[in-house]
Amino acid sequence: MSDKNKIMPDKIRAVQYGCGPIGLNVAALALRRNGIELAGAVDIDPDLAGRDLGEAAGMDRAAGVIITNDADELLSRCRPDIVFHTTTSRLETAAAQISDLVRAGANVVSTCEELSFPYRRDPAVASKLDLLARQNSATVLGTGINPGFLMDAWPLFMTGPCQNVTHVKVERMQDASGRRLPFQQKIGAGRTPEEFQALVESGKLRHVGLPESIAMLAAGLGWKLDEITESIEPVMAEKEVESPYLKVIPGQAAGVRQVGRGISQGAELILMEFSAFIGAAESFDSVTIKGTPDISVRIHGGTHGDISTAAMVVNAASRVVAAAPGLITMKDLPPVTAGS
Amino acid sequence: MSDKNKIMPDKIRAVQYGCGPIGLNVAALALRRNGIELAGAVDIDPDLAGRDLGEAAGMDRAAGVIITNDADELLSRCRPDIVFHTTTSRLETAAAQISDLVRAGANVVSTCEELSFPYRRDPAVASKLDLLARQNSATVLGTGINPGFLMDAWPLFMTGPCQNVTHVKVERMQDASGRRLPFQQKIGAGRTPEEFQALVESGKLRHVGLPESIAMLAAGLGWKLDEITESIEPVMAEKEVESPYLKVIPGQAAGVRQVGRGISQGAELILMEFSAFIGAAESFDSVTIKGTPDISVRIHGGTHGDISTAAMVVNAASRVVAAAPGLITMKDLPPVTAGS
Repeated sequence: MSDKNKIMPDKIRAVQYGCGPIGLNVAALALRRNGIELAGAVDIDPDLAGRDLGEAAGMDRAAGVIITNDADELLSRCRPDIVFHTTTSRLETAAAQISDLVRAGANVVSTCEELSFPYRRDPAVASKLDLLARQNSATVLGTGINPGFLMDAWPLFMTGPCQNVTHVKVERMQDASGRRLPFQQKIGAGRTPEEFQALVESGKLRHVGLPESIAMLAAGLGWKLDEITESIEPVMAEKEVESPYLKVIPGQAAGVRQVGRGISQGAELILMEFSAFIGAAESFDSVTIKGTPDISVRIHGGTHGDISTAAMVVNAASRVVAAAPGLITMKDLPPVTAGS
Repeated sequence: MSDKNKIMPDKIRAVQYGCGPIGLNVAALALRRNGIELAGAVDIDPDLAGRDLGEAAGMDRAAGVIITNDADELLSRCRPDIVFHTTTSRLETAAAQISDLVRAGANVVSTCEELSFPYRRDPAVASKLDLLARQNSATVLGTGINPGFLMDAWPLFMTGPCQNVTHVKVERMQDASGRRLPFQQKIGAGRTPEEFQALVESGKLRHVGLPESIAMLAAGLGWKLDEITESIEPVMAEKEVESPYLKVIPGQAAGVRQVGRGISQGAELILMEFSAFIGAAESFDSVTIKGTPDISVRIHGGTHGDISTAAMVVNAASRVVAAAPGLITMKDLPPVTAGS
């Protein structure tokens, strides 16, 4: 499936763009990969400039890669085959940054959630970025564990054995008890209903990507949706539940549930439920397909968000470097597999 | 990922090559698809010549497609975008037939098990067919539910969220109680150990494709295997078990278990277990990945072989028509998804 305009390098030359928690996870994995040479790293934070990337990522060795604040200088010096872009959930912000990367001739894998299926958020921005990428023989992909895999690419892949499909339900259930404190805070654990609502309204308490996942799934199945709905509500603690960091009492939120639906002619074709709360009975990811045949598939114990987002991004690198130029999505990429 | 030398038709023009049970399943599904025009069908059986394809496939309507014995005449008359090839498990036989199809300019999706990863059985035959396909701007794919999905493409896809992988186990467990009599006979149910052994030695009792699945999985993970082993043995009835067609008593085989292993430097990296017997506690398909993170995923109730092989073949059509020319395998194809 490779494009003849592109040459597959022996070793993929990469740059890390954004050195927050996700970016440092990605960089740490890329640094361990034989097939990747991580040649540079950039972040806007002046405190990070001059620091070694391996040390910043908490690795037990220096990477020999110094973080810079100057993206332009880095790109012209490194000439990367690929840039790992991890700065934002918002399409508009990502598209502006990625446009510069593409103009420098780099392929891009981004964790920007709204970029995973950008035709949902803003078709005009998506088309413009697609054209720019083609003009510069570069490929751009938005991915991660979710969106990018669990609630879109994986359910789509699982429809392959079906002669027809009439409904798809995807469920992601995370017991947040063992997750780090910022994650527990992010899902609203320990908040009163009023505090929870205020967090929702401020936009700080929300898994970004549910509508994108629904839109990608529909597009992959050739379904035209009239409407995509999304709701977000607290999962209230019914009894006292505890994590190593937090105690939640009845009347407080233990976490969050988001529900998204894809509707066509008044009928629900797609249902997505994303739940993360302290005290969930178990963690799992599941896909339930109604069709010929029905398919019911479940990842027991679920999938770790941080570890697996870094994996998806780094594992996608070789596929993206080999892909035809343009803005692509996971539904059109050959299987992203664990690299070495 | 489409190739610029190929033009994607509005409606895919297809021919059914081979009208045995699998071929008729494929044809019946293709006839129901809006995006496919099934323009012709061929089989070597003189008794099928002149019969309507819909009637032969047990549909409740005539298809208006008459089965012929003359493949050459059919190809030059129909000029198909794609041929559904369902005649054999053997690579050598399939390659000879498919070479003719490719020379006629047709893309091909085949259920030939050994073609699913032909570099295992005969790299020279595979390379020759690949070259011929490229010369004729045609794409050739071997697929089905197994091999083609459950024990190769699906496990590979599930490694995407892993930062590294050290071992993959794939298990297919089928309770044969509810399957048709020929399937129960094919797995050796009701046979004495001696009869079972004789069937194994005659080559009649064997799931074809386990080594191909192991080889594809290894190739997708960049693993070099020193050895692929395969064993086949009866699952003996421990108590009397019964299906609507057969009664099996202790001392007889209730079915079959095949085990394949991929070995590198003396260590097992891949384990595949294929079991089908009357009285199995449940049917399931599962993938168990050891890595970072571990992933344990299961299709509850398993996957119906006949229905889903037809689905995989017909669902793959649009991907294969759009793909770059050559002999490809499922590990390099974007997700095959349920069509309409």
